[in-house]
Amino acid sequence: MGLITLLTDFGLKDAYVGTMKGVVVGLAPEARVVDICHEVPPQDIRGGGLLWAQAVPYFPPGSIHVAVVDPGVGSRRKIVAVEARGSIFLAPDNGILGYVLKRREVRRAVEVKRSKHFLHPVSATFHGRDIFAPVAARLACGLPLDALGPVYRGYRLEKLPSTHLRRRTLGGTKLTETHGQVVHIDAFGNAVTNLRPRQASALRELKAGSVRLPRLVRTYSQVKAGEALVLVGSSGYLEIAVNRGRAAEALGLTVGERVVALWK
Amino acid sequence: MGLITLLTDFGLKDAYVGTMKGVVVGLAPEARVVDICHEVPPQDIRGGGLLWAQAVPYFPPGSIHVAVVDPGVGSRRKIVAVEARGSIFLAPDNGILGYVLKRREVRRAVEVKRSKHFLHPVSATFHGRDIFAPVAARLACGLPLDALGPVYRGYRLEKLPSTHLRRRTLGGTKLTETHGQVVHIDAFGNAVTNLRPRQASALRELKAGSVRLPRLVRTYSQVKAGEALVLVGSSGYLEIAVNRGRAAEALGLTVGERVVALWK
Amino acid sequence: MGLITLLTDFGLKDAYVGTMKGVVVGLAPEARVVDICHEVPPQDIRGGGLLWAQAVPYFPPGSIHVAVVDPGVGSRRKIVAVEARGSIFLAPDNGILGYVLKRREVRRAVEVKRSKHFLHPVSATFHGRDIFAPVAARLACGLPLDALGPVYRGYRLEKLPSTHLRRRTLGGTKLTETHGQVVHIDAFGNAVTNLRPRQASALRELKAGSVRLPRLVRTYSQVKAGEALVLVGSSGYLEIAVNRGRAAEALGLTVGERVVALWK
Repeated sequence: MGLITLLTDFGLKDAYVGTMKGVVVGLAPEARVVDICHEVPPQDIRGGGLLWAQAVPYFPPGSIHVAVVDPGVGSRRKIVAVEARGSIFLAPDNGILGYVLKRREVRRAVEVKRSKHFLHPVSATFHGRDIFAPVAARLACGLPLDALGPVYRGYRLEKLPSTHLRRRTLGGTKLTETHGQVVHIDAFGNAVTNLRPRQASALRELKAGSVRLPRLVRTYSQVKAGEALVLVGSSGYLEIAVNRGRAAEALGLTVGERVVALWK
Repeated sequence: MGLITLLTDFGLKDAYVGTMKGVVVGLAPEARVVDICHEVPPQDIRGGGLLWAQAVPYFPPGSIHVAVVDPGVGSRRKIVAVEARGSIFLAPDNGILGYVLKRREVRRAVEVKRSKHFLHPVSATFHGRDIFAPVAARLACGLPLDALGPVYRGYRLEKLPSTHLRRRTLGGTKLTETHGQVVHIDAFGNAVTNLRPRQASALRELKAGSVRLPRLVRTYSQVKAGEALVLVGSSGYLEIAVNRGRAAEALGLTVGERVVALWK
Repeated sequence: MGLITLLTDFGLKDAYVGTMKGVVVGLAPEARVVDICHEVPPQDIRGGGLLWAQAVPYFPPGSIHVAVVDPGVGSRRKIVAVEARGSIFLAPDNGILGYVLKRREVRRAVEVKRSKHFLHPVSATFHGRDIFAPVAARLACGLPLDALGPVYRGYRLEKLPSTHLRRRTLGGTKLTETHGQVVHIDAFGNAVTNLRPRQASALRELKAGSVRLPRLVRTYSQVKAGEALVLVGSSGYLEIAVNRGRAAEALGLTVGERVVALWK
């Protein structure tokens, strides 16, 4: 009676996702499958990780969260299954887990290796169908994590680049600067930063390249169409957006661009 | 064991819809969720309403129909839950209900206000997750409508612009003209009008701007690729389309363009 | 408790798929519906058939597979329901069944004709809602195939063009040539051929128009971005692709282009 969630970069123009569901429903007819997103930009681990991080906290414990964003498919990359927060996370060992989990939250991690739980022959290119789907289905039917392979402590957790903080005094007022960068351009052209928000009213200015934005708004409609804004995005970080436009192109922002927020 | 349908303008490139489903499945594990459409053009109340109107009549009574097309999210707009036709409709109070319901069909309407049924903290931008999803889930579990907030009679029902009818005599023959307008350009570039069809064989001509179309066809394939046609669209109104093309661009039609149909 | 799969060319920008699900859930509340793909290019029987063929083998027996890629909707084309491999296939009689079934696998075939199982009035343009959905739902509830209409032996099974084989001796080495063609350009611009793979290491060269590709790779990442490659596609045929590009446009390949593979 398990709940399986799926996040992939397979898109919806092909039958990949439907095929994975066929495998699941054949092996675990009672399991429920919920799509998180299938339009992760191809092979974009960070983009997928940020989307995964938005949705996962809203699912109940006991879920089996499967992410197939897997540029290394067919190479020797490992697949990892992790127990954390009462749920199971199944993903290629490419760091994507780091967007949803901290190392101290992980109760157990195994390498997914025991091929008797896979579909055979295992193709070189479609592990979603041949490994992830059948393994998720068997977990949903109660297969214990240990049955999948040996304990594995070397799993990678990708992190956003770190930020830093600097005190400043400006005209006698003590201010705080948080320094970060654009870490992702999302599907809507928003520039997602790695800066966490503070009290909205405390923002004096956010600088990104030549862009200077004076305040943190709550909704797009607080600025005119075509105008830039800063808001707290759905991943919980400051984002630079353009109302009804694409900020990245309009403002010339790319991943890596330095961002500085000045707070009262 | 309720059935929840979802209509949103969230698109499928993000994790918004998946997140809403996470909330629902956590609170109402037995509820079934069916997607009506998530690619309503952003903030397009009429476009969303017309799509909603196509699908809703085909769902069984007892459904909980949720529409999140919500340009006013974060402002003081109300959220309304309405009982009608044995089902429940949950939507922002922005008029979208008018595309699926007439006022006389409404048995009860409440303002969705009692925040203990919401997810906390309630964000400014994602009421789909924080209000609509948990409220739909609780309704699916049997929460009575009254528990959501006070009776509310001021709900808005948006309507298509009205049409009018004129008698004409042309060369001794009595004809009827129905006058309306293009009310929507759909995702395929079809120009949806507010004119209801009559007997197909009775159409003498449909005029829209400089376009003149001589007959009402049943299927696209009755005209050549690139040719314009009039047919009854899935919302039940006359639509101007171009076989394998986009009528709006090809024929220069925009919302508000006057349309006149001449019938025998 | 049936399982219904859906393949259509309706896209996800409209409410067509949601409407079909409304009909199904109303008539067969216990049935499960799984989407295979809804973004088959409009009216593309072969494209839809190739996608269908990828997914169908991975669903359990007892499934009801519904394909609505139906350029003939509203004309006199028949609808056919076929029992094969322990499952039921429901589709317009336009040949699409040929991509998933061989004639000798068919146990029974009926023409779907008995209109008491349809939704009324039956529209001219949306048989997905008015015929396919209610018929699938009733099959899921146990309606026997025979109840749908008379036995029908004239159903069409479209096939890919045939290929042929030629022996050659080149510099004293005996080689085999397989001759085929590009049969489909998929949504990613890949040129799908009708040639089946042999041992990867046996390929000496694949020629398609002016393109010459020296080896069969397992994954995209074996070549640089922008480079062409040959691999075994998800339908099981040789495909010509460009890593992170669109092969059809980049290499000028269209359906019908001759393809020759030279094998050791």
